Amino acid sequence: MTGVIRILGVDPGSGATGWGVIEAHGSRLSFLSAGVIRPKRTLSRAGRLAAIHEGLAALIAEWSPAEAAVEETFVNASPRDALVLGEARGVALLAPALAGLPVAEYAANTVKKSVVGRGHAEKAQVAAMVRVLLPTSGDQAADAADALAVAICHAHHRGAQQLLKRSA
Amino acid sequence: MTGVIRILGVDPGSGATGWGVIEAHGSRLSFLSAGVIRPKRTLSRAGRLAAIHEGLAALIAEWSPAEAAVEETFVNASPRDALVLGEARGVALLAPALAGLPVAEYAANTVKKSVVGRGHAEKAQVAAMVRVLLPTSGDQAADAADALAVAICHAHHRGAQQLLKRSA
Repeated sequence: MTGVIRILGVDPGSGATGWGVIEAHGSRLSFLSAGVIRPKRTLSRAGRLAAIHEGLAALIAEWSPAEAAVEETFVNASPRDALVLGEARGVALLAPALAGLPVAEYAANTVKKSVVGRGHAEKAQVAAMVRVLLPTSGDQAADAADALAVAICHAHHRGAQQLLKRSA
Repeated sequence: MTGVIRILGVDPGSGATGWGVIEAHGSRLSFLSAGVIRPKRTLSRAGRLAAIHEGLAALIAEWSPAEAAVEETFVNASPRDALVLGEARGVALLAPALAGLPVAEYAANTVKKSVVGRGHAEKAQVAAMVRVLLPTSGDQAADAADALAVAICHAHHRGAQQLLKRSA
């Protein structure tokens, strides 16, 4: 066994960036905290990105995760929307990287498959399964539940990667 | 007259991020420095973004610009490419915002029009006009010349904005 590992999951968006912190004890998961960073709409684009960065940096300082996982949102969007989403994603990848954390990325379908068992699950199904897997998380905003799902996905995958390493 | 204003221009990209620092003395412009940040290709995506951030933060500390301007690259790209470009752009907007600088954004066509006089100028024409407007800049890599063009564009636009304010 590799002991307890604390994971920060992030679901980035320019309007709302969900985050969630869990601990993985082998295959046992426990909920620590979750929430949503919502920069003021009156801020400039650069100001909103600074608010996301400062929010994530403060969370990392408070919760000291050992690893981070960021959702690669499925890009069913116009190039312009994808560019704006990419700006928020860049900041979400940057904050843990600057703190020296390894940052994993998972496609939205991988996250859904890991949590619900199917790659095309509805948002409500993801939130329901997050409540099952992390009973003490209670009712979370959709973006926070998505971030917890990313953290859960990473817990599953990193475990599998370590099993592969051990069997190699 | 409003004295000398020092401007950082940035042309963000995931492979290469151009930067240039100029000073505007009313309509008179002078070249200070320029270059290109090229994160190692062996780095992870988050690691490349951290390299861009650290490069820009170091430049801002060294040159102490008062204002920053970032090119909004024309998105004639797939949503996936736009997402990746957006990640670099987010980091380029973030670094000056975290340093407390106002950050202006200009569409690529606006930059070209401001420097060459036409919105659909070739890259080589932009570089040639940058050499005319900033004779001491010499030969610069294309991304550095583009970043200087963004800084020049901002110098032109901020001057016009201040004239409008004075005549109001």
